[in-house]
Amino acid sequence: MKLSVKTLPLKTERLSVVLNQDDAEDLGILPGDRVKILVGRESFIAEVETSTEIIKKGEIGLDTFTAESCNLNEQCKVEIHPVERPESVEFIRKKFEGKKYKKDEMKKIVSDIASNILNDIELAAFILANEIVGLDTDEIEWITWSMYESGERISFERGNVVDSSSIGSVLGNRYAMVTVPTVAAAGLLIPKTASRAITSASGTADTMEVLADVNLSVDEIKEIVEKVGGVIAWGGATNIAPADDKILRMEHQLGITSKACLISSLLAKKLGIGAKYVVVDIPISEEAKIENLDEGRNFASLFVEVGRRVGLKLSILISDGTQPLCKAVGPALEAREVLRAMENKEENELVEKGLEIASMLMEYGGIENSNALARKIFESGKTLEKFKEIIAAQGGDEKIKSEDIPVGEKRYTVNAGRGGIIQKISIKAINEIARAAGAPKDKGAGVYIHKKRGEVVKVGEPILTIYAEKDWKLDKAIEVARRENPIIVSGVVIEKMHLGRWYL
Amino acid sequence: MKLSVKTLPLKTERLSVVLNQDDAEDLGILPGDRVKILVGRESFIAEVETSTEIIKKGEIGLDTFTAESCNLNEQCKVEIHPVERPESVEFIRKKFEGKKYKKDEMKKIVSDIASNILNDIELAAFILANEIVGLDTDEIEWITWSMYESGERISFERGNVVDSSSIGSVLGNRYAMVTVPTVAAAGLLIPKTASRAITSASGTADTMEVLADVNLSVDEIKEIVEKVGGVIAWGGATNIAPADDKILRMEHQLGITSKACLISSLLAKKLGIGAKYVVVDIPISEEAKIENLDEGRNFASLFVEVGRRVGLKLSILISDGTQPLCKAVGPALEAREVLRAMENKEENELVEKGLEIASMLMEYGGIENSNALARKIFESGKTLEKFKEIIAAQGGDEKIKSEDIPVGEKRYTVNAGRGGIIQKISIKAINEIARAAGAPKDKGAGVYIHKKRGEVVKVGEPILTIYAEKDWKLDKAIEVARRENPIIVSGVVIEKMHLGRWYL
Repeated sequence: MKLSVKTLPLKTERLSVVLNQDDAEDLGILPGDRVKILVGRESFIAEVETSTEIIKKGEIGLDTFTAESCNLNEQCKVEIHPVERPESVEFIRKKFEGKKYKKDEMKKIVSDIASNILNDIELAAFILANEIVGLDTDEIEWITWSMYESGERISFERGNVVDSSSIGSVLGNRYAMVTVPTVAAAGLLIPKTASRAITSASGTADTMEVLADVNLSVDEIKEIVEKVGGVIAWGGATNIAPADDKILRMEHQLGITSKACLISSLLAKKLGIGAKYVVVDIPISEEAKIENLDEGRNFASLFVEVGRRVGLKLSILISDGTQPLCKAVGPALEAREVLRAMENKEENELVEKGLEIASMLMEYGGIENSNALARKIFESGKTLEKFKEIIAAQGGDEKIKSEDIPVGEKRYTVNAGRGGIIQKISIKAINEIARAAGAPKDKGAGVYIHKKRGEVVKVGEPILTIYAEKDWKLDKAIEVARRENPIIVSGVVIEKMHLGRWYL
Repeated sequence: MKLSVKTLPLKTERLSVVLNQDDAEDLGILPGDRVKILVGRESFIAEVETSTEIIKKGEIGLDTFTAESCNLNEQCKVEIHPVERPESVEFIRKKFEGKKYKKDEMKKIVSDIASNILNDIELAAFILANEIVGLDTDEIEWITWSMYESGERISFERGNVVDSSSIGSVLGNRYAMVTVPTVAAAGLLIPKTASRAITSASGTADTMEVLADVNLSVDEIKEIVEKVGGVIAWGGATNIAPADDKILRMEHQLGITSKACLISSLLAKKLGIGAKYVVVDIPISEEAKIENLDEGRNFASLFVEVGRRVGLKLSILISDGTQPLCKAVGPALEAREVLRAMENKEENELVEKGLEIASMLMEYGGIENSNALARKIFESGKTLEKFKEIIAAQGGDEKIKSEDIPVGEKRYTVNAGRGGIIQKISIKAINEIARAAGAPKDKGAGVYIHKKRGEVVKVGEPILTIYAEKDWKLDKAIEVARRENPIIVSGVVIEKMHLGRWYL
């Protein structure tokens, strides 16, 4: 069937066409089916939607993405033919029946996800079938290889390449900003690709972006690491393990966090940047992906085994995920906190974790006495020095000081209604407050926690400050703080409103 | 956030809005999240997509469906707020973990499907979780009630209301066009709502539409049945069990045929039309939904038990699904075949099945000697007479004769390459040929099978004729026929091309 192109003021992420309902029926095509579009000698596979109003008989509607990808405009006529669904859809269907994937099938599925050949329904089916039926260790190994192979790769000619990642769900978990420069200062290569927040108040990439450019290509990452030993870049700007991002977004829509995907996407990215030794941080808390120590240990064993199979040496750090690691939550507040800790050589939890992981990586890299050495690098100011080199290499200001970092001007402090000991800090509530205040989009927005768990607080002392860039967002964040009760001080009074002020 | 309405030249089936990416981030909203739109005193929940190009900051894009539903145009400004996902999404998520639904949860999910509150991803998740984890008899009972309660209902003040349905997947299965008038002639009420083809060459509604109007409302169905005793209407034109249609379309996209949904949607529709006694036809064949007798019997037990729980008395007919019931496949060809059988009082398989089911329903309805009576009604011409009354009541021509029905003018006959016995007729291949020829859209298109299984065929005798309304569709259908080898004649020669003609 020959059809005239009509462009539509829309942009999708996949090749798709809109056919007149009548034409579609003539071709025996239902919405969701695929057609082959013939354009000169080239052909494209696109998914069909149908319309009775927007597209007339004899027309084919293309959004701007599809029109540009296929190099078509309204002067063009195209020929279309119905085609079968991709093979990978049949492979996914076998999982519904409880069958195990074959290695090649997994490769095809992941490659079709990476190149947007599978649609959202099919991607959802893949994730759900895996989650409900389960994947065994072979299948997790294969999905890891497949994710790795479907994307770009970096390889370094020389040097020990190491890296670390957290499986997420702890706030203010910016240890990598201490680990990366410390490890690099010790002479190892650490090409860290970090993520941006999806539902949290800040990811390491968002926080690093306060100080430097994180949208780096694989070539830029390689060049920087070869020059200064380390980088903290946003993984999403590269094409390393590209199926990963799509799977994560669909998992969010489905409300699922699949352990198989956590393992495979983390390891595929490490393979992609050429790492040999990796430390995986598994924070545990009732509010986190891994709720307790037993679960953490089981998960760690699976992680190490899959790592072994794909040729990575893995260490695991099971860490406390019951409260934010930094006192700060939100991109600029965290960046300021990290820099201040380096400037003042503070002995806080952020530094403790950052150096612990650095020393594990250094030991892997053949460095003796790594624990003492990591501490020495930090205390001598070499961590800060290297961090500034990395910032400069990523196009940031190497003279930056913690006090220079602008944070939100709109502030509201919550004070303790009575004295006591901080009993519980809710990760979920703090996150919700910081996001309501504007984080991660408004870099200066977030929450500063004055007292962490176990600290003593007196009546009227500040326990948390909300930072925002806009009044309406500050108001929204205050509203969330009142509703959520994010910090619990021991005692009987839960909160009070008194003389026009509100106390937690 | 206050936004100016921008209408988009698109039409969706659900309330949805497009926000500028930046505004969405300001509100902490991701694609797929929901917002509440405030319009005066009314409010609507819609799903969010984001765009960096089509929609500017401060604008909100609405497709024509959403704009009309919310009564908005480009002069309007609206206020929006993020809202949580519907509760029903959480209920579905529990199924991922293998939990059983509660009755109220099922009701909420089905009602949210019926009113388009769940999006496609969520609907897919519901279907997949049910399919993989499974539903027990309680849950199938509840989904049946829920489907029934989410839609319109018909009730008849007097009379025995009976009905019959097939679970599908046999071609030319038009027995109901014999059953309905026979049963109605015996004094029972039979308000049959039939389906249109989704992937088959014709549904009973498509075939009936050749003779009369099938797009009837529940009021029209009730009026016609009270007047003439029976009707054959398209179920999709009513709002009976409205979730059903959406579930079926998504099952097609996912390549799933869920038995739980087969049962619940069939029974919910029977409840909806007020039936008390129902015969369910379960065709078995390797190419059908139910592959063998054992499976058929198990499925039948479940069907009967769920029927009992929802207050329906069920009989089951396990029938031969290995070849088309009629020799004709395609709307007009089937309609002609049905009328011809009634006119000539033929003793073919269509009539045999139609009268068998009629007699089962009549027995349920308290009619003695139903078998002999059904045959008597048919042979005396009362079935045909009643059928014409029904056709007239549905706005058709009551003087219609089989020879008046126009069928496709473009024809191609495949002849037997050698003599032998017809061994196998592939339902799938015949269906594909008929669809390629244009069925069900082109009413006159389809396939006529000259010889059914077990019949003797001589060299050069016709074995099937393809009918089409357009040359290019006829060509496509011939191509499919050559590829698929739809009919196998016993012997060694498989096919031949000889002196410019092709023989099967």
